[in-house]
Amino acid sequence: MTGHFFEGAEKLLEIWFTTSTSDTIKYTSRNDLRNIPRDLIEEVLNLVNCKVLQYAQSATTDTYVLSESSMFIFRTHFVLKTCGETTLLHAVQPILELARDYCDFDIVDQVFYSRRKFLRPELQKEPHTSFEHEVAYLDSLFEGGSAYVLGRTNIDCWYLYTLNKACVRTKSDQTLEVIMTNLDQEKMKIFFQEHTKSAAEATKKAGIDKIFPNAKIFDYLFNPCGYSMNGLLPDGYYFTIHITPEPDFSYVSFETNVPYHQYNDIVRKVISMFNPGKFTTTIFGGSASNSLDKHRKIFLYSDYARIDHQIVCLVDYDLIYSYYKKHPS
Amino acid sequence: MTGHFFEGAEKLLEIWFTTSTSDTIKYTSRNDLRNIPRDLIEEVLNLVNCKVLQYAQSATTDTYVLSESSMFIFRTHFVLKTCGETTLLHAVQPILELARDYCDFDIVDQVFYSRRKFLRPELQKEPHTSFEHEVAYLDSLFEGGSAYVLGRTNIDCWYLYTLNKACVRTKSDQTLEVIMTNLDQEKMKIFFQEHTKSAAEATKKAGIDKIFPNAKIFDYLFNPCGYSMNGLLPDGYYFTIHITPEPDFSYVSFETNVPYHQYNDIVRKVISMFNPGKFTTTIFGGSASNSLDKHRKIFLYSDYARIDHQIVCLVDYDLIYSYYKKHPS
Repeated sequence: MTGHFFEGAEKLLEIWFTTSTSDTIKYTSRNDLRNIPRDLIEEVLNLVNCKVLQYAQSATTDTYVLSESSMFIFRTHFVLKTCGETTLLHAVQPILELARDYCDFDIVDQVFYSRRKFLRPELQKEPHTSFEHEVAYLDSLFEGGSAYVLGRTNIDCWYLYTLNKACVRTKSDQTLEVIMTNLDQEKMKIFFQEHTKSAAEATKKAGIDKIFPNAKIFDYLFNPCGYSMNGLLPDGYYFTIHITPEPDFSYVSFETNVPYHQYNDIVRKVISMFNPGKFTTTIFGGSASNSLDKHRKIFLYSDYARIDHQIVCLVDYDLIYSYYKKHPS
Repeated sequence: MTGHFFEGAEKLLEIWFTTSTSDTIKYTSRNDLRNIPRDLIEEVLNLVNCKVLQYAQSATTDTYVLSESSMFIFRTHFVLKTCGETTLLHAVQPILELARDYCDFDIVDQVFYSRRKFLRPELQKEPHTSFEHEVAYLDSLFEGGSAYVLGRTNIDCWYLYTLNKACVRTKSDQTLEVIMTNLDQEKMKIFFQEHTKSAAEATKKAGIDKIFPNAKIFDYLFNPCGYSMNGLLPDGYYFTIHITPEPDFSYVSFETNVPYHQYNDIVRKVISMFNPGKFTTTIFGGSASNSLDKHRKIFLYSDYARIDHQIVCLVDYDLIYSYYKKHPS
């Protein structure tokens, strides 16, 4: 018998656009990804095998809770994160066309495609069956892409494809992702409908509403289990959490673009909230101005051994990958 | 027609041993890898498809120039580096047995297996046809091995397998490797027998004798082309250079274990000697005591853009990987 399985690990795509028509990058009202009609966005999501469960807007951000994870659309960039057996990369070419046709964005300024090593890669659909295939697919769409593997290829690792070039986009942008596995089963019970009646109740019980008290939260509790939330903060900041609570393949991801100096505190909050057996953090941003040695000393957490710590110095910013494992109690 | 081809990129193996019989690690005269009989060493090299061309001893080191690269044997560790289509990993199990039987070394203290991405992996023999196969082979021999990929998997990258654990071996050990491709064809002419009569003449013409003026050099010029040298320095320090000069697949490697503070000067000397179009440096050592930020600023070379720069913080030391490309002239 083949047991029930769900691949919690998300494929994560972020694309930044710009335009060749202005030297000074003064965007017109037409230069805005949020101009793309909603029904065409949904058509693209169909190609990925995702549906929209919730949609909301703020002054800076369109946010979507999806049947498999989340999407955020900003003026010049979007973030699409999809789990399970979705075919995220099928969205790339259509989105490039929509950005050109509806927003006059004819230049791709930056691309990030990343994911953790799948637990069961053989269940994925092309081109997601291997990182090699994903890279070949992306190389067919973009010029000058670089593919990296962080962590240990024979144990746990994390893949990244990016255009390693100087970008128009603001260098002050940054992202923190915390990917947690082997989670505390008591805490995971919150995300089963037999224990918790509503998404709002799950959000409160887990303390997710306390991470950023000023956030506007859009949450969803799946049947019979599983949880997704998008949180909107002022000034285009967001956070998003996705939870696969089943004991055999438990997985929680946390992602945010709030400023870098908060990351140490946020990671502490998030790991005490979910109590994972193992977790990785990936941090984009900082760049040469921040001391690498400072990073190295800061990102340590009691109860956890830091098993891996790698730094990739990219053109505009640094990427810091760390892998932590709980000390035996 | 399939043109002539030679895979210059070496497989590089370093294994450190210790013994469980003494708590204080006071080695007896039996605890010495140089006790392994020479004919048994040659039998192991036969499994790898290598022959011994030159052999010499110093107080600390046995050095071998091989038909495909080099070997160095020290008291508690050895370095075996083999190029072409050799099957280096076939040596591992026999060497572990010889170390146990002839030296009472029953514990493997540390392992490093590394290589650059092959130009033509399809010409390699198992398990060297892919890094995945190599890792599976090593995982069958060692516990707790970690596999890393540095650089860009879709362009140029470098693979490492190591036991990421605290070791008995002295933490002051360090290694620099410079791997050069797209070399200056005028400089490469030196390593063809039609231009140069002897190994000693090649060593002198290229200036290799000037890198460490106090070295004892063992060099070999292949027919019709190609060059290998081992250099012995006082106190167990060595350097070794291997050259595949053919224009279509030119490749030069330089490796040394002299102290870390000399690396910046050495790299400058070596790249001006061979004038590569591209090169990577890999540095083991340093550890947390050295400033990563200092590393980052130091290892820059005029005429070259540093395309990639990655740092892996391992248990006992840091690994710094950098990839450089010549500025268009």
